[in-house]
Amino acid sequence: MEVGFIGLGVMGRSMARHVLDAGYSLTVYTRTTERAQELIDAGAYWADSPKDVARQCDIICTIVGYPRDVEDVYLGPDGLVANAKEGTILIDLTTSTPSLAQEIYEKGGLRAVRSLDAPVSGGDIGAREARLTVMVGGDEDAFEKALPVLQTFGKHIALMGGAGAGQHTKMCNQIAIAAGMMGVCEALVYAEEAGLDQTKMIETISTGAAASWSLSNYGPRIIAGNFEPGFYVKHFIKDMEIALAAAADMGVETPGLQLACDLYNELAEEGFADMGTHSLYKLYSLTSDTSGTSSQ
Amino acid sequence: MEVGFIGLGVMGRSMARHVLDAGYSLTVYTRTTERAQELIDAGAYWADSPKDVARQCDIICTIVGYPRDVEDVYLGPDGLVANAKEGTILIDLTTSTPSLAQEIYEKGGLRAVRSLDAPVSGGDIGAREARLTVMVGGDEDAFEKALPVLQTFGKHIALMGGAGAGQHTKMCNQIAIAAGMMGVCEALVYAEEAGLDQTKMIETISTGAAASWSLSNYGPRIIAGNFEPGFYVKHFIKDMEIALAAAADMGVETPGLQLACDLYNELAEEGFADMGTHSLYKLYSLTSDTSGTSSQ
Repeated sequence: MEVGFIGLGVMGRSMARHVLDAGYSLTVYTRTTERAQELIDAGAYWADSPKDVARQCDIICTIVGYPRDVEDVYLGPDGLVANAKEGTILIDLTTSTPSLAQEIYEKGGLRAVRSLDAPVSGGDIGAREARLTVMVGGDEDAFEKALPVLQTFGKHIALMGGAGAGQHTKMCNQIAIAAGMMGVCEALVYAEEAGLDQTKMIETISTGAAASWSLSNYGPRIIAGNFEPGFYVKHFIKDMEIALAAAADMGVETPGLQLACDLYNELAEEGFADMGTHSLYKLYSLTSDTSGTSSQ
Repeated sequence: MEVGFIGLGVMGRSMARHVLDAGYSLTVYTRTTERAQELIDAGAYWADSPKDVARQCDIICTIVGYPRDVEDVYLGPDGLVANAKEGTILIDLTTSTPSLAQEIYEKGGLRAVRSLDAPVSGGDIGAREARLTVMVGGDEDAFEKALPVLQTFGKHIALMGGAGAGQHTKMCNQIAIAAGMMGVCEALVYAEEAGLDQTKMIETISTGAAASWSLSNYGPRIIAGNFEPGFYVKHFIKDMEIALAAAADMGVETPGLQLACDLYNELAEEGFADMGTHSLYKLYSLTSDTSGTSSQ
Protein backbone atom coordinates (compact mmCIF):
# COMPACT_ATOMS: atom_id res chain seq x y z
CA MET A 1 0.00 0.00 0.00
CA GLU A 2 1.25 3.45 -0.98
CA VAL A 3 0.56 6.44 1.27
CA GLY A 4 0.55 9.98 -0.14
CA PHE A 5 1.11 13.15 1.81
CA ILE A 6 0.35 16.63 0.46
CA GLY A 7 1.32 19.77 2.38
CA LEU A 8 4.63 19.80 4.22
CA GLY A 9 4.37 22.81 6.48
CA VAL A 10 5.49 22.64 10.11
CA MET A 11 2.69 20.23 11.01
CA GLY A 12 2.72 18.23 7.78
CA ARG A 13 6.48 17.54 7.81
CA SER A 14 6.35 16.05 11.30
CA MET A 15 3.26 13.98 10.54
CA ALA A 16 4.59 12.67 7.21
CA ARG A 17 7.80 11.69 8.95
CA HIS A 18 5.86 9.55 11.43
CA VAL A 19 4.07 7.80 8.55
CA LEU A 20 7.43 7.08 6.91
CA ASP A 21 9.05 5.97 10.16
CA ALA A 22 6.18 3.52 10.72
CA GLY A 23 7.33 1.69 7.60
CA TYR A 24 4.85 2.91 4.99
CA SER A 25 5.98 3.60 1.46
CA LEU A 26 5.40 7.35 1.15
CA THR A 27 4.95 9.73 -1.78
CA VAL A 28 4.95 13.44 -1.04
CA TYR A 29 4.03 16.69 -2.76
CA THR A 30 4.14 20.24 -1.48
CA ARG A 31 4.19 23.63 -3.19
CA THR A 32 7.54 24.64 -1.73
CA THR A 33 9.75 21.84 -3.02
CA GLU A 34 12.63 22.35 -0.57
CA ARG A 35 10.36 21.41 2.30
CA ALA A 36 10.28 17.84 0.99
CA GLN A 37 14.05 17.36 0.90
CA GLU A 38 14.50 15.91 4.36
CA LEU A 39 11.69 13.40 3.77
CA ILE A 40 13.11 12.44 0.37
CA ASP A 41 16.52 11.95 1.97
CA ALA A 42 14.80 9.66 4.47
CA GLY A 43 13.26 7.55 1.70
CA ALA A 44 10.07 9.27 0.54
CA TYR A 45 9.22 9.59 -3.17
CA TRP A 46 8.50 12.93 -4.82
CA ALA A 47 5.42 13.55 -6.95
CA ASP A 48 5.10 16.57 -9.24
CA SER A 49 1.46 17.38 -8.49
CA PRO A 50 -1.59 16.33 -6.47
CA LYS A 51 -2.71 14.51 -9.63
CA ASP A 52 0.50 12.43 -9.60
CA VAL A 53 -0.05 11.59 -5.95
CA ALA A 54 -3.65 10.63 -6.71
CA ARG A 55 -2.62 8.19 -9.42
CA GLN A 56 -0.05 6.38 -7.28
CA CYS A 57 -1.48 6.17 -3.76
CA ASP A 58 -4.13 4.23 -1.83
CA ILE A 59 -4.39 6.47 1.19
CA ILE A 60 -3.69 10.20 0.77
CA CYS A 61 -3.28 12.66 3.64
CA THR A 62 -3.47 16.40 3.05
CA ILE A 63 -2.75 19.30 5.38
CA VAL A 64 -2.71 22.64 3.61
CA GLY A 65 -3.46 26.19 4.73
CA TYR A 66 -6.91 27.50 3.94
CA PRO A 67 -10.20 26.09 2.65
CA ARG A 68 -9.35 27.54 -0.79
CA ASP A 69 -6.15 25.43 -0.77
CA VAL A 70 -8.21 22.36 0.11
CA GLU A 71 -10.49 23.16 -2.85
CA ASP A 72 -7.45 23.50 -5.13
CA VAL A 73 -5.99 20.17 -4.07
CA TYR A 74 -9.25 18.20 -4.02
CA LEU A 75 -11.61 19.60 -6.63
CA GLY A 76 -11.31 20.51 -10.30
CA PRO A 77 -9.92 18.43 -13.19
CA ASP A 78 -6.40 18.12 -11.70
CA GLY A 79 -7.58 17.47 -8.15
CA LEU A 80 -7.50 14.38 -5.96
CA VAL A 81 -11.19 13.56 -6.30
CA ALA A 82 -11.09 13.44 -10.10
CA ASN A 83 -7.82 11.50 -10.31
CA ALA A 84 -7.77 9.10 -7.36
CA LYS A 85 -8.10 5.37 -8.03
CA GLU A 86 -11.33 3.67 -7.05
CA GLY A 87 -11.27 2.75 -3.36
CA THR A 88 -8.68 5.36 -2.44
CA ILE A 89 -9.16 7.01 0.96
CA LEU A 90 -8.55 10.76 1.03
CA ILE A 91 -7.89 12.20 4.50
CA ASP A 92 -7.98 15.96 4.89
CA LEU A 93 -6.14 16.94 8.07
CA THR A 94 -6.54 20.67 7.36
CA THR A 95 -8.89 22.64 9.60
CA SER A 96 -11.41 23.61 6.94
CA THR A 97 -15.14 24.11 6.48
CA PRO A 98 -17.60 21.34 7.33
CA SER A 99 -19.51 22.08 4.12
CA LEU A 100 -16.40 21.61 1.94
CA ALA A 101 -15.73 18.28 3.70
CA GLN A 102 -19.27 17.23 2.82
CA GLU A 103 -18.84 18.36 -0.80
CA ILE A 104 -15.62 16.35 -1.15
CA TYR A 105 -17.33 13.33 0.40
CA GLU A 106 -20.25 13.57 -2.00
CA LYS A 107 -18.18 14.18 -5.14
CA GLY A 108 -15.75 11.40 -4.15
CA GLY A 109 -18.67 9.05 -3.62
CA LEU A 110 -19.68 9.40 -7.29
CA ARG A 111 -16.31 7.86 -8.25
CA ALA A 112 -16.05 5.35 -5.37
CA VAL A 113 -13.34 7.51 -3.81
CA ARG A 114 -13.65 7.61 -0.01
CA SER A 115 -12.92 10.64 2.11
CA LEU A 116 -12.47 11.57 5.75
CA ASP A 117 -12.25 15.02 7.30
CA ALA A 118 -9.74 14.69 10.11
CA PRO A 119 -8.52 18.00 11.55
CA VAL A 120 -6.05 17.75 14.39
CA SER A 121 -5.21 19.61 17.53
CA GLY A 122 -2.07 19.60 19.63
CA GLY A 123 0.11 22.01 17.66
CA ASP A 124 3.64 21.58 16.40
CA ILE A 125 4.75 19.84 19.60
CA GLY A 126 1.88 17.36 19.38
CA ALA A 127 2.83 16.67 15.75
CA ARG A 128 6.51 16.17 16.57
CA GLU A 129 5.74 13.88 19.48
CA ALA A 130 2.99 11.94 17.64
CA ARG A 131 0.36 12.73 20.22
CA LEU A 132 -2.17 14.74 18.24
CA THR A 133 -5.91 14.62 18.81
CA VAL A 134 -7.59 13.68 15.49
CA MET A 135 -11.29 14.48 15.05
CA VAL A 136 -12.70 12.44 12.21
CA GLY A 137 -15.84 12.67 10.09
CA GLY A 138 -16.85 10.08 7.50
CA ASP A 139 -17.79 6.42 7.10
CA GLU A 140 -16.81 3.86 9.68
CA ASP A 141 -15.19 1.39 7.29
CA ALA A 142 -13.02 4.10 5.71
CA PHE A 143 -12.12 5.22 9.24
CA GLU A 144 -11.10 1.68 10.22
CA LYS A 145 -8.90 1.36 7.13
CA ALA A 146 -7.27 4.76 7.71
CA LEU A 147 -6.77 4.26 11.44
CA PRO A 148 -3.30 2.63 11.33
CA VAL A 149 -1.99 5.61 9.33
CA LEU A 150 -3.67 8.13 11.67
CA GLN A 151 -2.18 6.28 14.64
CA THR A 152 1.35 6.99 13.43
CA PHE A 153 0.91 10.65 14.48
CA GLY A 154 -2.30 10.69 16.55
CA LYS A 155 -2.82 9.70 20.15
CA HIS A 156 -6.53 10.45 20.62
CA ILE A 157 -8.41 9.56 17.45
CA ALA A 158 -12.19 9.69 17.42
CA LEU A 159 -14.77 9.10 14.70
CA MET A 160 -17.28 11.86 15.47
CA GLY A 161 -19.96 11.16 12.85
CA GLY A 162 -20.50 11.46 9.11
CA ALA A 163 -18.67 13.74 6.66
CA GLY A 164 -18.07 17.17 8.24
CA ALA A 165 -18.32 15.92 11.84
CA GLY A 166 -14.54 16.07 12.26
CA GLN A 167 -14.52 19.71 11.19
CA HIS A 168 -17.53 20.50 13.38
CA THR A 169 -15.73 18.99 16.38
CA LYS A 170 -12.63 21.05 15.63
CA MET A 171 -14.86 24.14 15.52
CA CYS A 172 -16.17 23.27 19.00
CA ASN A 173 -12.55 23.04 20.11
CA GLN A 174 -11.70 26.46 18.68
CA ILE A 175 -14.90 28.04 20.07
CA ALA A 176 -14.07 26.82 23.58
CA ILE A 177 -10.48 28.07 23.28
CA ALA A 178 -11.35 31.47 21.76
CA ALA A 179 -13.50 32.78 24.61
CA GLY A 180 -11.23 31.12 27.15
CA MET A 181 -8.21 33.03 25.84
CA MET A 182 -10.00 36.32 26.52
CA GLY A 183 -10.57 35.18 30.09
CA VAL A 184 -6.93 34.18 30.57
CA CYS A 185 -5.60 37.45 29.12
CA GLU A 186 -8.06 39.64 31.02
CA ALA A 187 -7.29 37.88 34.31
CA LEU A 188 -3.55 38.36 33.72
CA VAL A 189 -3.73 42.02 32.77
CA TYR A 190 -6.06 42.65 35.71
CA ALA A 191 -3.57 40.92 38.02
CA GLU A 192 -0.71 43.03 36.68
CA GLU A 193 -2.56 46.29 37.21
CA ALA A 194 -3.70 45.20 40.68
CA GLY A 195 -0.08 44.60 41.63
CA LEU A 196 -0.53 40.85 42.13
CA ASP A 197 2.23 38.32 41.52
CA GLN A 198 0.86 36.90 38.25
CA THR A 199 2.57 33.55 38.68
CA LYS A 200 1.15 33.10 42.15
CA MET A 201 -2.27 34.18 40.89
CA ILE A 202 -2.20 31.46 38.22
CA GLU A 203 -1.03 28.83 40.70
CA THR A 204 -3.76 29.79 43.15
CA ILE A 205 -6.75 29.99 40.82
CA SER A 206 -5.63 26.87 38.93
CA THR A 207 -6.50 24.83 42.03
CA GLY A 208 -10.20 25.47 41.40
CA ALA A 209 -12.92 26.20 38.88
CA ALA A 210 -10.81 28.63 36.83
CA ALA A 211 -8.36 25.89 35.81
CA SER A 212 -7.76 25.46 32.10
CA TRP A 213 -5.11 24.20 29.73
CA SER A 214 -4.73 27.72 28.31
CA LEU A 215 -4.19 29.27 31.73
CA SER A 216 -1.59 26.67 32.77
CA ASN A 217 0.23 26.52 29.44
CA TYR A 218 -0.02 30.02 27.99
CA GLY A 219 -0.08 31.91 31.30
CA PRO A 220 3.59 31.26 32.13
CA ARG A 221 4.67 32.11 28.55
CA ILE A 222 2.74 35.39 28.72
CA ILE A 223 4.37 36.25 32.04
CA ALA A 224 7.80 35.43 30.56
CA GLY A 225 7.06 37.72 27.59
CA ASN A 226 7.43 34.79 25.19
CA PHE A 227 4.90 35.19 22.38
CA GLU A 228 6.47 32.78 19.88
CA PRO A 229 3.84 30.71 18.12
CA GLY A 230 2.62 27.43 19.29
CA PHE A 231 -0.33 28.32 17.07
CA TYR A 232 -0.38 31.36 14.76
CA VAL A 233 -2.82 34.24 15.25
CA LYS A 234 -3.54 34.26 11.49
CA HIS A 235 -4.50 30.59 11.49
CA PHE A 236 -6.66 30.98 14.57
CA ILE A 237 -8.52 33.82 12.83
CA LYS A 238 -9.12 31.55 9.85
CA ASP A 239 -10.54 28.87 12.15
CA MET A 240 -12.76 31.32 14.05
CA GLU A 241 -14.11 32.72 10.78
CA ILE A 242 -14.97 29.20 9.61
CA ALA A 243 -16.70 28.56 12.93
CA LEU A 244 -18.63 31.83 12.77
CA ALA A 245 -19.85 31.08 9.27
CA ALA A 246 -20.84 27.51 10.18
CA ALA A 247 -22.60 28.72 13.33
CA ALA A 248 -24.48 31.40 11.39
CA ASP A 249 -25.48 28.76 8.85
CA MET A 250 -27.01 26.68 11.62
CA GLY A 251 -28.62 29.68 13.37
CA VAL A 252 -26.36 29.33 16.43
CA GLU A 253 -25.54 32.54 18.33
CA THR A 254 -21.87 32.79 19.31
CA PRO A 255 -21.28 36.29 20.72
CA GLY A 256 -18.21 35.19 22.70
CA LEU A 257 -16.62 33.75 19.58
CA GLN A 258 -17.52 36.87 17.61
CA LEU A 259 -15.89 39.14 20.18
CA ALA A 260 -12.76 36.96 20.33
CA CYS A 261 -12.51 36.99 16.53
CA ASP A 262 -12.89 40.79 16.46
CA LEU A 263 -10.13 41.17 19.05
CA TYR A 264 -7.81 38.77 17.19
CA ASN A 265 -8.40 40.71 13.97
CA GLU A 266 -7.43 43.90 15.81
CA LEU A 267 -4.35 42.08 17.10
CA ALA A 268 -3.39 41.01 13.55
CA GLU A 269 -3.79 44.62 12.39
CA GLU A 270 -1.38 45.64 15.16
CA GLY A 271 1.23 43.38 13.54
CA PHE A 272 0.82 40.15 15.52
CA ALA A 273 -0.55 37.87 12.76
CA ASP A 274 2.57 35.68 12.86
CA MET A 275 2.81 35.52 16.64
CA GLY A 276 1.27 32.93 18.94
CA THR A 277 -2.40 33.08 19.92
CA HIS A 278 -1.47 34.02 23.49
CA SER A 279 -0.11 37.34 22.16
CA LEU A 280 -3.75 38.46 22.56
CA TYR A 281 -2.38 39.62 25.92
CA LYS A 282 -0.45 42.32 24.04
CA LEU A 283 -3.69 43.80 22.72
CA TYR A 284 -4.95 44.14 26.29
CA SER A 285 -1.66 45.71 27.35
CA LEU A 286 -1.88 48.14 24.43
CA THR A 287 -5.47 49.17 25.14
CA SER A 288 -5.41 49.18 28.92
CA ASP A 289 -4.65 52.50 30.52
CA THR A 290 -1.40 51.73 32.27
CA SER A 291 -1.54 55.07 34.02
CA GLY A 292 -4.51 53.71 36.00
CA THR A 293 -4.05 53.73 39.74
CA SER A 294 -2.92 50.40 41.07
CA SER A 295 -4.83 49.72 44.24
CA GLN A 296 -2.01 47.67 45.76
CA MET B 1 -9.12 31.70 72.11
CA GLU B 2 -12.69 32.40 70.99
CA VAL B 3 -13.58 32.25 67.31
CA GLY B 4 -16.58 34.14 65.94
CA PHE B 5 -18.49 33.33 62.79
CA ILE B 6 -20.99 35.70 61.16
CA GLY B 7 -23.13 34.63 58.21
CA LEU B 8 -24.47 31.09 58.15
CA GLY B 9 -25.65 30.64 54.58
CA VAL B 10 -24.90 27.44 52.67
CA MET B 11 -21.16 28.18 52.61
CA GLY B 12 -20.92 29.70 56.09
CA ARG B 13 -22.70 26.84 57.87
CA SER B 14 -20.30 24.25 56.46
CA MET B 15 -17.25 26.37 57.19
CA ALA B 16 -18.32 27.24 60.76
CA ARG B 17 -18.94 23.56 61.40
CA HIS B 18 -15.35 22.71 60.42
CA VAL B 19 -14.07 25.39 62.83
CA LEU B 20 -16.17 23.89 65.62
CA ASP B 21 -15.19 20.32 64.76
CA ALA B 22 -11.53 21.30 64.93
CA GLY B 23 -12.04 22.03 68.62
CA TYR B 24 -12.34 25.82 68.67
CA SER B 25 -14.79 27.51 70.99
CA LEU B 26 -17.20 29.15 68.54
CA THR B 27 -19.67 32.03 68.81
CA VAL B 28 -22.04 32.56 65.90
CA TYR B 29 -24.40 35.22 64.62
CA THR B 30 -26.54 35.27 61.49
CA ARG B 31 -29.59 37.29 60.45
CA THR B 32 -31.82 34.24 60.04
CA THR B 33 -31.62 32.76 63.54
CA GLU B 34 -32.84 29.26 62.61
CA ARG B 35 -29.79 28.73 60.48
CA ALA B 36 -27.67 28.67 63.64
CA GLN B 37 -29.63 25.91 65.38
CA GLU B 38 -27.62 22.95 64.17
CA LEU B 39 -24.37 24.64 65.17
CA ILE B 40 -25.75 25.59 68.59
CA ASP B 41 -26.88 21.98 69.08
CA ALA B 42 -23.33 20.96 68.28
CA GLY B 43 -21.90 23.28 70.93
CA ALA B 44 -21.60 26.76 69.43
CA TYR B 45 -22.66 29.87 71.39
CA TRP B 46 -25.18 32.36 70.04
CA ALA B 47 -24.52 36.10 69.96
CA ASP B 48 -27.28 38.65 69.41
CA SER B 49 -25.41 40.95 67.07
CA PRO B 50 -22.09 41.51 65.28
CA LYS B 51 -21.25 43.86 68.17
CA ASP B 52 -21.69 41.00 70.67
CA VAL B 53 -19.47 38.77 68.55
CA ALA B 54 -16.88 41.56 68.39
CA ARG B 55 -16.73 41.93 72.16
CA GLN B 56 -16.23 38.22 72.84
CA CYS B 57 -13.98 36.89 70.10
CA ASP B 58 -10.30 36.97 69.10
CA ILE B 59 -10.66 35.81 65.53
CA ILE B 60 -13.88 36.61 63.65
CA CYS B 61 -14.83 35.13 60.30
CA THR B 62 -17.59 36.65 58.18
CA ILE B 63 -19.24 35.44 55.01
CA VAL B 64 -22.25 37.48 54.03
CA GLY B 65 -23.93 38.25 50.70
CA TYR B 66 -23.05 41.55 49.13
CA PRO B 67 -20.53 44.34 49.71
CA ARG B 68 -23.31 46.38 51.38
CA ASP B 69 -23.74 43.52 53.90
CA VAL B 70 -19.99 43.58 54.55
CA GLU B 71 -20.25 47.32 55.19
CA ASP B 72 -23.15 46.76 57.59
CA VAL B 73 -21.29 44.13 59.59
CA TYR B 74 -17.91 45.86 59.67
CA LEU B 75 -18.40 49.62 59.62
CA GLY B 76 -20.54 52.06 61.61
CA PRO B 77 -20.96 52.38 65.38
CA ASP B 78 -22.33 48.83 65.86
CA GLY B 79 -19.89 47.16 63.48
CA LEU B 80 -16.96 44.83 64.06
CA VAL B 81 -14.27 47.44 63.48
CA ALA B 82 -15.60 49.83 66.14
CA ASN B 83 -16.26 47.11 68.71
CA ALA B 84 -13.53 44.51 68.34
CA LYS B 85 -10.94 44.15 71.07
CA GLU B 86 -7.42 45.33 70.36
CA GLY B 87 -5.48 42.63 68.49
CA THR B 88 -8.57 40.91 67.13
CA ILE B 89 -8.23 39.48 63.61
CA LEU B 90 -11.24 40.04 61.35
CA ILE B 91 -11.40 37.71 58.34
CA ASP B 92 -13.87 38.54 55.60
CA LEU B 93 -14.54 35.44 53.50
CA THR B 94 -17.20 37.21 51.41
CA THR B 95 -16.37 37.95 47.78
CA SER B 96 -16.49 41.73 48.01
CA THR B 97 -14.75 44.81 46.64
CA PRO B 98 -10.99 45.24 46.99
CA SER B 99 -11.51 48.88 47.97
CA LEU B 100 -13.85 47.96 50.84
CA ALA B 101 -11.26 45.44 52.07
CA GLN B 102 -8.69 48.24 52.08
CA GLU B 103 -11.04 50.59 53.91
CA ILE B 104 -11.70 48.00 56.63
CA TYR B 105 -7.97 47.37 56.92
CA GLU B 106 -7.23 51.07 57.33
CA LYS B 107 -10.04 51.80 59.76
CA GLY B 108 -9.17 48.70 61.79
CA GLY B 109 -5.55 49.77 61.90
CA LEU B 110 -6.51 52.96 63.75
CA ARG B 111 -7.80 50.78 66.63
CA ALA B 112 -5.15 48.03 66.42
CA VAL B 113 -7.77 45.69 64.96
CA ARG B 114 -6.28 43.46 62.25
CA SER B 115 -8.12 42.40 59.11
CA LEU B 116 -7.74 39.96 56.24
CA ASP B 117 -9.77 39.75 53.05
CA ALA B 118 -10.03 36.05 52.30
CA PRO B 119 -12.61 35.16 49.62
CA VAL B 120 -12.90 31.48 48.80
CA SER B 121 -13.59 29.35 45.78
CA GLY B 122 -14.73 25.76 45.53
CA GLY B 123 -18.46 26.15 46.08
CA ASP B 124 -20.77 24.36 48.48
CA ILE B 125 -19.05 21.02 47.87
CA GLY B 126 -15.63 22.51 48.61
CA ALA B 127 -17.02 24.02 51.81
CA ARG B 128 -18.59 20.74 52.92
CA GLU B 129 -15.44 18.78 52.18
CA ALA B 130 -13.08 21.38 53.68
CA ARG B 131 -11.11 21.78 50.49
CA LEU B 132 -11.72 25.41 49.58
CA THR B 133 -9.16 27.65 47.94
CA VAL B 134 -8.68 30.74 50.14
CA MET B 135 -7.17 33.87 48.57
CA VAL B 136 -5.89 36.15 51.28
CA GLY B 137 -4.91 39.81 51.40
CA GLY B 138 -3.40 41.50 54.46
CA ASP B 139 -0.37 41.44 56.75
CA GLU B 140 1.79 38.36 57.06
CA ASP B 141 1.68 38.10 60.85
CA ALA B 142 -2.12 38.33 60.92
CA PHE B 143 -2.18 35.71 58.17
CA GLU B 144 0.06 33.37 60.18
CA LYS B 145 -2.16 33.73 63.25
CA ALA B 146 -5.33 33.14 61.25
CA LEU B 147 -3.95 30.22 59.25
CA PRO B 148 -4.94 27.39 61.64
CA VAL B 149 -8.55 28.57 61.54
CA LEU B 150 -8.49 28.92 57.73
CA GLN B 151 -7.02 25.43 57.48
CA THR B 152 -10.09 23.92 59.12
CA PHE B 153 -12.04 24.56 55.89
CA GLY B 154 -9.38 25.48 53.31
CA LYS B 155 -7.06 23.25 51.33
CA HIS B 156 -5.17 25.77 49.19
CA ILE B 157 -4.55 28.92 51.21
CA ALA B 158 -2.36 31.65 49.76
CA LEU B 159 -1.36 35.09 51.03
CA MET B 160 -1.52 37.11 47.82
CA GLY B 161 -0.34 40.53 49.05
CA GLY B 162 -1.58 43.43 51.16
CA ALA B 163 -5.18 44.34 51.97
CA GLY B 164 -7.42 43.85 48.92
CA ALA B 165 -5.09 41.33 47.22
CA GLY B 166 -7.32 38.42 48.21
CA GLN B 167 -10.31 40.11 46.58
CA HIS B 168 -8.26 41.01 43.50
CA THR B 169 -7.20 37.37 43.12
CA LYS B 170 -10.79 36.23 43.42
CA MET B 171 -11.66 38.73 40.68
CA CYS B 172 -9.00 37.15 38.44
CA ASN B 173 -10.63 33.80 39.16
CA GLN B 174 -14.09 35.06 38.19
CA ILE B 175 -12.78 36.86 35.08
CA ALA B 176 -11.14 33.66 33.82
CA ILE B 177 -14.31 31.66 34.51
CA ALA B 178 -16.73 34.19 33.00
CA ALA B 179 -15.34 34.23 29.47
CA GLY B 180 -14.62 30.50 29.67
CA MET B 181 -18.28 29.74 30.40
CA MET B 182 -19.28 31.48 27.16
CA GLY B 183 -16.83 29.25 25.29
CA VAL B 184 -18.15 26.09 26.95
CA CYS B 185 -21.81 26.98 26.27
CA GLU B 186 -21.17 28.09 22.69
CA ALA B 187 -19.22 24.92 21.91
CA LEU B 188 -22.03 22.79 23.34
CA VAL B 189 -24.86 24.55 21.53
CA TYR B 190 -22.83 24.46 18.31
CA ALA B 191 -22.29 20.72 18.78
CA GLU B 192 -25.98 20.16 19.36
CA GLU B 193 -26.99 22.01 16.21
CA ALA B 194 -24.27 20.27 14.19
CA GLY B 195 -25.69 16.91 15.26
CA LEU B 196 -22.58 15.87 17.18
CA ASP B 197 -22.69 13.63 20.24
CA GLN B 198 -22.04 16.34 22.85
CA THR B 199 -20.54 13.91 25.38
CA LYS B 200 -18.11 12.54 22.82
CA MET B 201 -17.26 16.09 21.72
CA ILE B 202 -16.34 17.02 25.30
CA GLU B 203 -14.30 13.87 25.79
CA THR B 204 -12.42 14.46 22.54
CA ILE B 205 -11.60 18.15 22.89
CA SER B 206 -10.75 17.73 26.58
CA THR B 207 -7.66 15.77 25.54
CA GLY B 208 -6.11 18.98 24.21
CA ALA B 209 -5.87 22.75 24.41
CA ALA B 210 -9.62 23.25 24.97
CA ALA B 211 -9.52 21.42 28.31
CA SER B 212 -10.93 23.28 31.28
CA TRP B 213 -12.49 22.61 34.65
CA SER B 214 -15.73 24.22 33.45
CA LEU B 215 -15.93 22.04 30.35
CA SER B 216 -15.26 18.81 32.29
CA ASN B 217 -17.47 19.64 35.27
CA TYR B 218 -20.33 21.72 33.88
CA GLY B 219 -20.43 20.13 30.40
CA PRO B 220 -21.89 16.81 31.59
CA ARG B 221 -24.42 18.61 33.83
CA ILE B 222 -25.54 20.76 30.89
CA ILE B 223 -25.94 17.68 28.69
CA ALA B 224 -27.96 16.00 31.46
CA GLY B 225 -30.20 19.08 31.69
CA ASN B 226 -29.22 19.57 35.34
CA PHE B 227 -29.00 23.30 36.04
CA GLU B 228 -29.12 23.14 39.83
CA PRO B 229 -26.71 25.60 41.41
CA GLY B 230 -23.22 24.79 42.30
CA PHE B 231 -22.85 28.57 42.14
CA TYR B 232 -25.83 30.94 41.71
CA VAL B 233 -26.22 33.14 38.63
CA LYS B 234 -27.16 36.09 40.87
CA HIS B 235 -23.96 35.77 42.92
CA PHE B 236 -21.83 35.41 39.81
CA ILE B 237 -23.36 38.63 38.45
CA LYS B 238 -22.45 40.38 41.71
CA ASP B 239 -18.86 39.15 41.40
CA MET B 240 -18.56 40.17 37.76
CA GLU B 241 -19.92 43.62 38.53
CA ILE B 242 -17.33 44.04 41.29
CA ALA B 243 -14.62 42.93 38.86
CA LEU B 244 -15.85 45.29 36.13
CA ALA B 245 -15.84 48.23 38.53
CA ALA B 246 -12.38 47.37 39.89
CA ALA B 247 -11.03 46.90 36.35
CA ALA B 248 -12.49 50.22 35.22
CA ASP B 249 -10.93 51.85 38.29
CA MET B 250 -7.52 50.56 37.22
CA GLY B 251 -8.02 51.39 33.53
CA VAL B 252 -8.06 47.71 32.53
CA GLU B 253 -10.15 46.78 29.48
CA THR B 254 -12.20 43.61 29.98
CA PRO B 255 -14.52 43.23 26.97
CA GLY B 256 -14.89 39.46 27.46
CA LEU B 257 -15.96 39.97 31.07
CA GLN B 258 -18.35 42.75 30.03
CA LEU B 259 -20.00 40.54 27.44
CA ALA B 260 -20.29 37.64 29.88
CA CYS B 261 -21.83 39.93 32.49
CA ASP B 262 -24.33 41.28 29.93
CA LEU B 263 -25.33 37.75 28.95
CA TYR B 264 -25.71 36.67 32.58
CA ASN B 265 -27.90 39.70 33.27
CA GLU B 266 -30.08 38.68 30.32
CA LEU B 267 -30.19 35.18 31.76
CA ALA B 268 -31.29 36.52 35.16
CA GLU B 269 -34.03 38.53 33.45
CA GLU B 270 -35.20 35.31 31.81
CA GLY B 271 -35.77 33.90 35.30
CA PHE B 272 -32.52 32.02 35.92
CA ALA B 273 -31.07 34.15 38.76
CA ASP B 274 -31.37 31.27 41.24
CA MET B 275 -30.03 28.59 38.91
CA GLY B 276 -26.42 27.48 38.49
CA THR B 277 -23.96 29.49 36.41
CA HIS B 278 -23.90 26.77 33.75
CA SER B 279 -27.56 27.59 32.97
CA LEU B 280 -26.01 30.20 30.67
CA TYR B 281 -26.45 27.38 28.17
CA LYS B 282 -30.21 27.96 28.36
CA LEU B 283 -29.76 31.53 27.11
CA TYR B 284 -27.96 30.21 24.04
CA SER B 285 -30.68 27.61 23.53
CA LEU B 286 -33.32 30.34 23.80
CA THR B 287 -31.61 32.70 21.37
CA SER B 288 -30.26 30.20 18.86
CA ASP B 289 -32.51 29.56 15.91
CA THR B 290 -33.29 25.90 16.40
CA SER B 291 -34.98 25.82 13.02
CA GLY B 292 -31.51 26.30 11.48
CA THR B 293 -30.47 23.56 9.11
CA SER B 294 -28.25 21.02 10.76
CA SER B 295 -25.50 20.14 8.36
CA GLN B 296 -25.21 16.59 9.68
